Amino acid sequence: MQKRIKAFQNWLVEENIDTAILTSSENVFYFSKFFSDPHERLLAIVLFQNEEPFLVCPQMEVETARAAGFGQTIIGYQDTENPWEKVNAEIQKRVSTVNKIAVEKTHMNVERYEVVLKSYPSAQFISAEEKLNLLRTIKDEDEIEQIRKACELADYAIEVGVNAIKEGISELEIVAAIEYEMKKKGVQKMSFDTTVLAGAKAASPHGVPGAAKVKKGDFVLFDLGVIYEGYCSDITRTVAFGDVSEESRKVYETVLQAQLAAVDASRPGITCAELDQTARNIISDAGYGEYFTHRLGHGLGISIHEYPSVTETNQLVLQPGMVYTIEPGIYIPNKVGVRIEDDILITKDGAEVLTKYPKELQVIS
Amino acid sequence: MQKRIKAFQNWLVEENIDTAILTSSENVFYFSKFFSDPHERLLAIVLFQNEEPFLVCPQMEVETARAAGFGQTIIGYQDTENPWEKVNAEIQKRVSTVNKIAVEKTHMNVERYEVVLKSYPSAQFISAEEKLNLLRTIKDEDEIEQIRKACELADYAIEVGVNAIKEGISELEIVAAIEYEMKKKGVQKMSFDTTVLAGAKAASPHGVPGAAKVKKGDFVLFDLGVIYEGYCSDITRTVAFGDVSEESRKVYETVLQAQLAAVDASRPGITCAELDQTARNIISDAGYGEYFTHRLGHGLGISIHEYPSVTETNQLVLQPGMVYTIEPGIYIPNKVGVRIEDDILITKDGAEVLTKYPKELQVIS
Repeated sequence: MQKRIKAFQNWLVEENIDTAILTSSENVFYFSKFFSDPHERLLAIVLFQNEEPFLVCPQMEVETARAAGFGQTIIGYQDTENPWEKVNAEIQKRVSTVNKIAVEKTHMNVERYEVVLKSYPSAQFISAEEKLNLLRTIKDEDEIEQIRKACELADYAIEVGVNAIKEGISELEIVAAIEYEMKKKGVQKMSFDTTVLAGAKAASPHGVPGAAKVKKGDFVLFDLGVIYEGYCSDITRTVAFGDVSEESRKVYETVLQAQLAAVDASRPGITCAELDQTARNIISDAGYGEYFTHRLGHGLGISIHEYPSVTETNQLVLQPGMVYTIEPGIYIPNKVGVRIEDDILITKDGAEVLTKYPKELQVIS
Repeated sequence: MQKRIKAFQNWLVEENIDTAILTSSENVFYFSKFFSDPHERLLAIVLFQNEEPFLVCPQMEVETARAAGFGQTIIGYQDTENPWEKVNAEIQKRVSTVNKIAVEKTHMNVERYEVVLKSYPSAQFISAEEKLNLLRTIKDEDEIEQIRKACELADYAIEVGVNAIKEGISELEIVAAIEYEMKKKGVQKMSFDTTVLAGAKAASPHGVPGAAKVKKGDFVLFDLGVIYEGYCSDITRTVAFGDVSEESRKVYETVLQAQLAAVDASRPGITCAELDQTARNIISDAGYGEYFTHRLGHGLGISIHEYPSVTETNQLVLQPGMVYTIEPGIYIPNKVGVRIEDDILITKDGAEVLTKYPKELQVIS
């Protein structure tokens, strides 16, 4: 925690920023270990170049924030109080002039911005997102441990889902079976809405599970993730329910080869673009290039989508501590859809695959 | 839909606002029937005093938006395009000067605000929220129909949860049982995280279900809701698992009397404050005033919390078409917690209770 704060403070010094007011639940959690969704109420961590940061949250959450492990000043406020008066008073205790303020411009809303602007009418507002996104790409040991556990639970969720496949069951019933078992394991939240798509529906990368029943001859695609202690996992597997066509098998093998090649290429020093190309070339060479319609993957951690974005054009170089998905897919409209996705950790001299459910084509009879 | 748009346009005329750029999923849905969560991508409905509104969304969603029933211009954009250029071009087709722009200041983020400000540097920005919140308080027949169905499903969810109570089952397992049955009914999303709290945990109004097992002698509190065709329901019931103490029974009866009194008082012409007081007086008179720590209720519709806010101080007068919760509670820390909540529709000459699960104290043996 102190290392994270120190790294951010170094940036404040470099950029000559007097204070940073961070308001997203994710970045407050990153610097405080306190996760909360206060809806319209103010939650913020306020950081400075040298002075100690402070947290501001509704009064009724102060004890929870303290218990989460934030050891510095916590400012609570009642609904009848104006929290910004308290924030400004705390800021003035720490710095005498505020000329440059960093905020999350994609998170802070106009109403709040106008309030802060009123207090510091001549201040320059700087976007903190790019720096925060980059800092968060390099996971520390604690974070890796949580993601590892989230991945173990995701592996188990796939196992539950695959075991639930049978004649007459619907996509939504399989989702329900998975989430039931996860709740029994103590999981309070999935990373995103669990997706189970059968047959031609799997060919829609944004399909939503419905009451349609799985049928013999279908591929069944699972895409899901678990949140463990604030950290996300994300896994996709596609299995065959009964015999599938020759072409379906060819599509599956192509996606698998592309996925394995990108996993194999994962190491410090390679760029996101090179990694995407490694998988994309295999799919294009097999004649399915036009059906791989999205990026190869995305970073994950506190958010399910974060840096690095593994695209054809991102020249970001992978470094130890980065965690991201590799999830090539082929989607032939109204016909067949396959995606295979793992979560990868870049290590000192290679990579570790954190999701471990088998990937060879599994045929459920 | 046209009536909703017309009512908003009247406000634009009154306030002399040239255009409104609305970006929240909820308000886009309200005026277009198209619901989408585009994450960081731009989704907006743009309205004018007299000219026809238009919708802007990612290209891949244009067909879905059309199918949802939006009959006017839809502007799609690719990820490689700047959507704001297209938005500005469409605005210029309709109005020649833009001096006053309405936006949702609690939704639009600073990054977008700076982009719009660059296009209209001398324009005045007006907050559209208060007007939108007030418009949305009066539900039309279509909306009431959807809420009614969401309430029926919520009643059934409570029934499932109550039937799941047995020795050895945990709070999270009951949640899982409820959500499993809801998925089987085709429900894709609950209004919020389903809450099941047993024993002293029910005394925490913000408690989270866990692996703790329900025990004989506990109250079990259910708070849940269902989304049906974009509209929310919200219900709370508290039942006894085996015999509960005399004091627990007294707490239950007090909450029930307060709830029934507020339901009974619900009619056009009464204020939110009067309604809150009706319930609060009964709880205070029974000596539990300090343990009723929140407002009596809140409006609901597209959002789970919307206008009217049923508080001690809100002088808003209830009118036909308003839908809100009545949910008094008593929470004695580390001891007992009871809340009973219904969804109420104000009619021409009274009120209709939309949630119908029984409220007399139920003892599960």
